Amino acid sequence: MSNNTVTLTGVVATEPRHLITAGGVPISSFRLASTPRRFDSTEQKWTDGDTNWFTVTTYRQLAINSAESIKKGDRVLVRGAVRVREWESGETNGTTVEVEADALGHDLTWGTTQLVRQPHKADVEL
Amino acid sequence: MSNNTVTLTGVVATEPRHLITAGGVPISSFRLASTPRRFDSTEQKWTDGDTNWFTVTTYRQLAINSAESIKKGDRVLVRGAVRVREWESGETNGTTVEVEADALGHDLTWGTTQLVRQPHKADVEL
Amino acid sequence: MSNNTVTLTGVVATEPRHLITAGGVPISSFRLASTPRRFDSTEQKWTDGDTNWFTVTTYRQLAINSAESIKKGDRVLVRGAVRVREWESGETNGTTVEVEADALGHDLTWGTTQLVRQPHKADVEL
Amino acid sequence: MSNNTVTLTGVVATEPRHLITAGGVPISSFRLASTPRRFDSTEQKWTDGDTNWFTVTTYRQLAINSAESIKKGDRVLVRGAVRVREWESGETNGTTVEVEADALGHDLTWGTTQLVRQPHKADVEL
Repeated sequence: MSNNTVTLTGVVATEPRHLITAGGVPISSFRLASTPRRFDSTEQKWTDGDTNWFTVTTYRQLAINSAESIKKGDRVLVRGAVRVREWESGETNGTTVEVEADALGHDLTWGTTQLVRQPHKADVEL
Repeated sequence: MSNNTVTLTGVVATEPRHLITAGGVPISSFRLASTPRRFDSTEQKWTDGDTNWFTVTTYRQLAINSAESIKKGDRVLVRGAVRVREWESGETNGTTVEVEADALGHDLTWGTTQLVRQPHKADVEL
Repeated sequence: MSNNTVTLTGVVATEPRHLITAGGVPISSFRLASTPRRFDSTEQKWTDGDTNWFTVTTYRQLAINSAESIKKGDRVLVRGAVRVREWESGETNGTTVEVEADALGHDLTWGTTQLVRQPHKADVEL
Repeated sequence: MSNNTVTLTGVVATEPRHLITAGGVPISSFRLASTPRRFDSTEQKWTDGDTNWFTVTTYRQLAINSAESIKKGDRVLVRGAVRVREWESGETNGTTVEVEADALGHDLTWGTTQLVRQPHKADVEL
């Protein structure tokens, strides 16, 4: 088991981007806005907390299917591992917070979906 | 946060059952078969482990949308809390292992879906 | 990553049992009582839910260290995979709900601990 | 349940810092280095991935007990919610990745601990 497991729900905040690596691996990624609900014990009600931003990345068959399924504005559920990367490029640097997803789906709290089975192409061809 | 959080993937093994409680709460439930993949270090390959069986239960709007979305044979991703219940009925007794889901969706590793937004009816009427 | 990940907190309800398999693998296990806290929106306060019972099992070095660390009544935090097993023995049958732990520790919400490093014996000798 | 749950194991990379807010809430925090193990299917063996860095923050009684328990170099297990914060201070800005812990303990894979129960002081005084 991974030493790092996260499960998130949230809103897809960008149109997903798709690419294929030089080695032939399909990758799909998008930004996810995840806003916690907190119980405010002073006010005695639930309120929105600050939004957390993640880059969600999928690989192989999950990337292929995500490319045809996920749109900006969709509500999703994602499970994976959190990757925190410090980067440097010339004089600027920063931090990227990524969720490397191993499972992803539309969150049925917000709507309905029908699953259309797809043959696994990732290991065969593209 | 709950003291008990679980995230599972698996196959829906029964047609979902839907009902509305006397208090007017929609509930939907189905059996989930979740089979782990293990790396066999002797054989140096991935194999299927024993299947684990859960009853997945959803409430309110998630139950309403699940009723229109989830079919036997679908691959899903579910997050929730595990409930282990010992029951007794006349001379028989047993144990039920339930996942009280707070998020549920089709697993895009296995196919594609389009999210159709649904108005929240659960708190209004049915 | 496992298709099944759970994280639980609770009270150790039995003295841990330790054994070594015929193949030489140390195993330690105990019963865990995990009681959820729920926010009761009618009463506007937090209350105890029903207790969930699990058998927590550890292997190898984690089993060896657990054997010297975990006592009945201790508060712990455990991460692992849920295993649901239907069993039959003669005319009786039942269900066992197990958490196969990959990480385990005392829950510091309830007390203090000092970590005493132990050499890894599991792969060497017992 | 939170819409964001993470469970991590790793090494405490800094001496924990403790403070009490103006409102009287004890807080303790430290940097955690969490290095994933990956199965390299080309080499057919497990290797270390890149290390992920998190700031782990605890509050109230968990902060008080952590202050007396956690030392730089300790191996720990932590459960909580990931918070991603973009900050700006004068001409510099950056991103902080925090785990707001709701449970924390020494990871018994690496050593042994004895739990010393502590009375709950957090809601009374300090």
